[in-house]
Amino acid sequence: MYALAIHGGAGALPRVPFTAAREHAYRQGLMQALDAGQRLLERGGCALDAVEAAVAALEDDPLFNAARGAVLTADGTVELDAAIMDGTGLRAGAVALIRHVRNPVRLARRLLEDGAHVFLVGEGAERFAEQAGFSLVANDYFITPDRQRQFEALQQRRQRVGAAAAPAAIALEEPPLGTVGAVARDQAGGLAAATSTGGTAGKHAGRVGDSPVIGAGTYADNQTCAVSTTGHGEWFLRTVQAFDIAARLRYGGCSLATAVSEAIGRLVALGAAGGLIAVDQHGEIAMGHNTPAMFRASVRAGEAASVHLR
Amino acid sequence: MYALAIHGGAGALPRVPFTAAREHAYRQGLMQALDAGQRLLERGGCALDAVEAAVAALEDDPLFNAARGAVLTADGTVELDAAIMDGTGLRAGAVALIRHVRNPVRLARRLLEDGAHVFLVGEGAERFAEQAGFSLVANDYFITPDRQRQFEALQQRRQRVGAAAAPAAIALEEPPLGTVGAVARDQAGGLAAATSTGGTAGKHAGRVGDSPVIGAGTYADNQTCAVSTTGHGEWFLRTVQAFDIAARLRYGGCSLATAVSEAIGRLVALGAAGGLIAVDQHGEIAMGHNTPAMFRASVRAGEAASVHLR
Repeated sequence: MYALAIHGGAGALPRVPFTAAREHAYRQGLMQALDAGQRLLERGGCALDAVEAAVAALEDDPLFNAARGAVLTADGTVELDAAIMDGTGLRAGAVALIRHVRNPVRLARRLLEDGAHVFLVGEGAERFAEQAGFSLVANDYFITPDRQRQFEALQQRRQRVGAAAAPAAIALEEPPLGTVGAVARDQAGGLAAATSTGGTAGKHAGRVGDSPVIGAGTYADNQTCAVSTTGHGEWFLRTVQAFDIAARLRYGGCSLATAVSEAIGRLVALGAAGGLIAVDQHGEIAMGHNTPAMFRASVRAGEAASVHLR
Repeated sequence: MYALAIHGGAGALPRVPFTAAREHAYRQGLMQALDAGQRLLERGGCALDAVEAAVAALEDDPLFNAARGAVLTADGTVELDAAIMDGTGLRAGAVALIRHVRNPVRLARRLLEDGAHVFLVGEGAERFAEQAGFSLVANDYFITPDRQRQFEALQQRRQRVGAAAAPAAIALEEPPLGTVGAVARDQAGGLAAATSTGGTAGKHAGRVGDSPVIGAGTYADNQTCAVSTTGHGEWFLRTVQAFDIAARLRYGGCSLATAVSEAIGRLVALGAAGGLIAVDQHGEIAMGHNTPAMFRASVRAGEAASVHLR
């Protein structure tokens, strides 16, 4: 029994009219990514390959805030974070502040396979990428006209309200909708999780959110579950959110559905906005969010795929 | 009832003769740092101030692998990581790949107080430091003659065994002894934790270990405990070690002593070397390690301070 769930971020829907055409495009992007992972699982592939394929598809899709189509920092550049974890052997790879690698999740995977370090950041990570044979792309590759316009609007607002007060205000007003992630259970019982993001629009250069942090945004352990989160990264770092779900199973003995629902309740109490997707060792899928929207899709062996935006 | 515990790293004692004079110097360094934190707790200061003061003292002491006296990367530079967390309100600040801030733990504290971002890395973090009024120092400030000699010895070994195979081998041979950390409970019941490190000797530029990762190397929550870890950072990232202790209390309902002893047992089973210090909401202190040595000291209100190296 395989199972796969993906997300394309939690937050508020864009203030600009969310047209039927745009909604269709998002649904299509999610279905294509789901399909990329499902094809592998169906023919007996491992969960790790499936989450990498699904996340890479979402990274390439300019609609989502990961790799191509990522939001811009306060400096007008793109800085990308990603992580991947294999529940078999607790292997993990994570990268942050990536500016020139087309698919950060594939770099994270390469790091996982390499085994020497779990977490590589910035120029050191890109030097590792070059040595590992990745071809680097210009930072412009990631920047879409939509994100350029969003950046210019943020700049103008920043000038109006004053530079000092702006970053926090902007981070709150712009929901982090668009982070992408995937969790999977393969036919052999292996679990894996992956997450990739451009972070929050107008973020301070050097800011790292929860997505690439093992335990916060991404976690997988065959004995419990695989989790990928999306939302206010700062809060998910503080609550160590992905591992918190696994710990509720491991030490609290509760079901995945209960763990996710109680965790979302706690996030509400803390004032933290976001959502998460999870799959457990039995192939049960649980997804929760406390935001107006969370883009997500899921499928299990022998069942029809489903896509939801709200 | 206040309680304070600090560590100066877990690993193997140096292969060079660990003389009585050198042992005395380590004991003295630990006692001075403990004293810096204790003085604050005794007069009603908060746990957050105490762990910052204790860790800053260890950062300034060239004997320890944090700030001044840190190990060198494969490039021959110093890259520093630190985190601090306040169990009251789950506030946190973390910095990594710092090259020019004298006390990384104080920069992490500043980030915690600022509140906008939890985790800032590299040049972006140092720009934040400058804007926050920190005066930057040259990277040379951190490099001691001992560490320069260690670096040159590693370089020679690397040339002998070949550049490609060397990094992993070196990371394993050189124990990460010298990371520093502190956990405290103040008289009002507040808990806090802080950790600071130069990482592993000969690490790849851009490598971030567990120390600055909230949940892995550093965690505090007034409802459970405060934890600081030291050891093979890659493993502690995968096991989300600091939060794992808190989760054993929160969801498993076990005592701090049991949580620490079971966690150390699991690390042994995984082949992960290291140790950790923890204090719970009642002021109980638990420390554990599976390495030949862990430099540590602790004190509780009305009790005598104790220092242990092995």
